[in-house]
Amino acid sequence: MTEIQTTQLYGPIAEDLVLVEDLLESAKRVDVFALRKMLEHALESRGKRLRPALVLLAGTFGEYDLNKLVPLGTAIELLHTASLVHDDVIDGADNRRGKPTANSLFNNALTVLLGDFLFANAAEMVTRTGSLKVTRLFALTLMKMTSGELDQDTAAFDVGRDVQSYLSRIGGKTASLVENATEGGAVLAGCSEKDVESLRSYGYNLGMAFQIVDDILDFQGTEELMGKPVGSDLKEGTITLPTLLYLQSASREDVVRKFLETEKDRESYLEDAIKKITNSSAIIESQKFAEDYVTRARTALQSLPNNDGRERLERLGDYVLERNN
Amino acid sequence: MTEIQTTQLYGPIAEDLVLVEDLLESAKRVDVFALRKMLEHALESRGKRLRPALVLLAGTFGEYDLNKLVPLGTAIELLHTASLVHDDVIDGADNRRGKPTANSLFNNALTVLLGDFLFANAAEMVTRTGSLKVTRLFALTLMKMTSGELDQDTAAFDVGRDVQSYLSRIGGKTASLVENATEGGAVLAGCSEKDVESLRSYGYNLGMAFQIVDDILDFQGTEELMGKPVGSDLKEGTITLPTLLYLQSASREDVVRKFLETEKDRESYLEDAIKKITNSSAIIESQKFAEDYVTRARTALQSLPNNDGRERLERLGDYVLERNN
Repeated sequence: MTEIQTTQLYGPIAEDLVLVEDLLESAKRVDVFALRKMLEHALESRGKRLRPALVLLAGTFGEYDLNKLVPLGTAIELLHTASLVHDDVIDGADNRRGKPTANSLFNNALTVLLGDFLFANAAEMVTRTGSLKVTRLFALTLMKMTSGELDQDTAAFDVGRDVQSYLSRIGGKTASLVENATEGGAVLAGCSEKDVESLRSYGYNLGMAFQIVDDILDFQGTEELMGKPVGSDLKEGTITLPTLLYLQSASREDVVRKFLETEKDRESYLEDAIKKITNSSAIIESQKFAEDYVTRARTALQSLPNNDGRERLERLGDYVLERNN
Repeated sequence: MTEIQTTQLYGPIAEDLVLVEDLLESAKRVDVFALRKMLEHALESRGKRLRPALVLLAGTFGEYDLNKLVPLGTAIELLHTASLVHDDVIDGADNRRGKPTANSLFNNALTVLLGDFLFANAAEMVTRTGSLKVTRLFALTLMKMTSGELDQDTAAFDVGRDVQSYLSRIGGKTASLVENATEGGAVLAGCSEKDVESLRSYGYNLGMAFQIVDDILDFQGTEELMGKPVGSDLKEGTITLPTLLYLQSASREDVVRKFLETEKDRESYLEDAIKKITNSSAIIESQKFAEDYVTRARTALQSLPNNDGRERLERLGDYVLERNN
């Protein structure tokens, strides 16, 4: 993403994101050669740095101290990267957003350790905020993320799980880290308890919308934009919101059910199953869920001072709903 | 290990280790069913809890506050367990100390996440000490452990590494966590900088001796006592101190060199290679290294007050040298 785009998205704090890039750059400087090569690959600049931007934006509602906010933003990006690295090992994924994964370039053993090192570095980085409270929130977040991920893995192909179970899982897997970004930024800026709670709630709800849109894009996106085949989640047996809502009105003989419940020759049903879900009303119903979460996120902002940061946070709701990759 | 044995080993602090067991027990109580089952397996009481005991013993040199020392001891045990869980995934090990590994009971994906959860729980636990300094030391320790482990994995079958490289690797992989136990315990007890440094140095040197003895036992122990086949390290290509010292006087045609340098039919040389090392003077030379580290550990204790804790720490040197599993 170019600098102009991040400025449009994040406003004046966009220029401070370069400090996060600097800290990420410094994280690559380690003695062990193989680790250095792996870190260079994993931390290659590529994303929108949404989570660090949210830390900084939350910080605009109090004392905007970059000496505290930048380490937290960097820690959260390191943690996010660590979890992607382990996800890719777990899924045996070859590509992520069109880029070869660490496990496809190195081996699984080294990639597990790369993820561990990134977790450790994230933990070290968050202590640089000087706040034990924020450090503790951060550790609790990693516990939620891992539980959510583990729940997702054990729920594969399990058609008995309901929407509530899905929402709780993505709350842990994805929303908890976005929540940690805004809550942590607010705590570091010394915001009032009420403002911390508003920003925490904003982050959680934005994170929920973000993951639901991700799960819709897995059906609706193109392989070119997403960098992975359409329907990848379903193929892995991960039952996301579109599939769940689709199943609510599907017959016993429906192809999606057949795909999920037949172990023999499962793959032969996959293409049809993807098409059925993509062309069903479950997509629009899922979008409605995402919109509701964005509305909740915006509602949470209403009690905050109406500064430039608040306007950016409001607009990020549109970005999350409208993104196509 | 029975209670009487830990009392012999750790003296009066042994009874406080039950508080560590209680916290470990509480760590198993999580909502996600599969995770709970995995935690119950991973945290099953079985070991000597050497690292938590060292935290408590270090704490006897200052204000012995169990509200701080117990969370650190528990955090270190969780971190130790997490690293073993990931080690077993990496090595594809089926057993550890005669007990089936998590990756052999569950699958690799879930086991990676189990390790991640234990890391996160360890990080959460260390923040309960209320000390940002100790939390930071803890994160730095995990970075050292992972670097050391990664260096070991990339050095497999590489006969070009020297003794210094081995010592640096085990310093990260093993000694850093033992060092963290005694240093962290001393910091939490409010010891003077000088005493913190003495206890840190003790832990580091004891940890070095511990790992060297482990590496000797891989050749000298019996499968029954060790719970894994003799020569497991060499088989994996991990060149430990006995192998390194053996190679220093081995001819170009030596079977150990053949095992390490011939990729084709490597396994056919393994049994002979193990025997050659086991029956060589490299074992006694390695023991000499371990004894030297224990001497350094004891020397570090000399400036400390001569209390019961110090006597126990001194005797632990013998235990590390004399253990046979």
